[in-house]
Amino acid sequence: MTEPLPDDLWPDVRPDAARRLMAAAIESFATRGYHATTTRDIANAAGMSPAALYVHFPSKAAVLSAISRSGHEQALDMVQDVVSGTPDPVEAMSLIVQRFVAWHAKRHRVARVVQYELQALPPPDYEQIATLRRRTEQLVRDVITAGVDRGRFHVTDVRTAARAVLSLGIDVARWYTDTGKPSPALLGRQYADLVLRMLGA
Amino acid sequence: MTEPLPDDLWPDVRPDAARRLMAAAIESFATRGYHATTTRDIANAAGMSPAALYVHFPSKAAVLSAISRSGHEQALDMVQDVVSGTPDPVEAMSLIVQRFVAWHAKRHRVARVVQYELQALPPPDYEQIATLRRRTEQLVRDVITAGVDRGRFHVTDVRTAARAVLSLGIDVARWYTDTGKPSPALLGRQYADLVLRMLGA
Repeated sequence: MTEPLPDDLWPDVRPDAARRLMAAAIESFATRGYHATTTRDIANAAGMSPAALYVHFPSKAAVLSAISRSGHEQALDMVQDVVSGTPDPVEAMSLIVQRFVAWHAKRHRVARVVQYELQALPPPDYEQIATLRRRTEQLVRDVITAGVDRGRFHVTDVRTAARAVLSLGIDVARWYTDTGKPSPALLGRQYADLVLRMLGA
Repeated sequence: MTEPLPDDLWPDVRPDAARRLMAAAIESFATRGYHATTTRDIANAAGMSPAALYVHFPSKAAVLSAISRSGHEQALDMVQDVVSGTPDPVEAMSLIVQRFVAWHAKRHRVARVVQYELQALPPPDYEQIATLRRRTEQLVRDVITAGVDRGRFHVTDVRTAARAVLSLGIDVARWYTDTGKPSPALLGRQYADLVLRMLGA
């Protein structure tokens, strides 16, 4: 773990040691999977002792929950920001897709943990995350519905359409690689164009 | 493992004991992840001894490879069947999406292993699977290109469009649940409509 932490990764998490442990956990989960990773693996990868880990997180599951919660909160905040600042539903959808896709490309390692390890969360944490996901999905459905009401989108099933929009972004985390091509920003614009057409804009 | 095996799951795998082990592996990987699953877990879940497992598979990785190879071969065969039997690119794309999406919904547990455990494959097996994936992707790109050439599709970047088409189907495996709603067939038709619009048909 010699790489410096990007500034926009978990900006709200303090102290730095907690953020370093979360970054180390991402690497460990990617290498050996969540279930086969131990707290010792995470502490080692962060250059700390297991005891030092327990100062910040009571368990491996607590590290996973912190990573997952932060990712889901960032996604919800992003969508909320766009919605409250962009009255036009076509423009709002374009911005949501651009930012959602770019984040999943740029942070594909973090996003894989955020999106694919939900079943490993302790039930109360899972419920909290599921609520954040439902709110994000509802906002995307609201944008589509607003577009349909104004005759800007043409969609038969709003729920399926919203699912498809989010699916396209989430799946970027699965296939995107460190070569960084296409760039996160370009991919975001390409996907936004595809989504607007999919919604009949 | 009291559930009977569906007839269309690994029709080419014989004997039945090998298929039962593959089905047991799917359940074990889903419960505790690939890395934390042991060959004993798989054998137990199939109601066999570890020694009986080794008669059919030399290792846990060999079980994973068999599951992954079968899934990827089925996907490639399906796309090839559609392409060779459907000269019209719009109709071909609709059929490909309907079948690809329906399979990922109906077999979401199998599909999760097929799609999300590629990094765990031994390198030679990974290379074989990667070749199957590239051929499937190429066929989808060819259908899009044929559609563009005939003025039936309008797409700026064929590679990104093909990626988006496959992404939509693959991600179904992540979110689809045992409630079975919408039905695999209905979801396939809804997604086929969305994809055709995405491609400017």
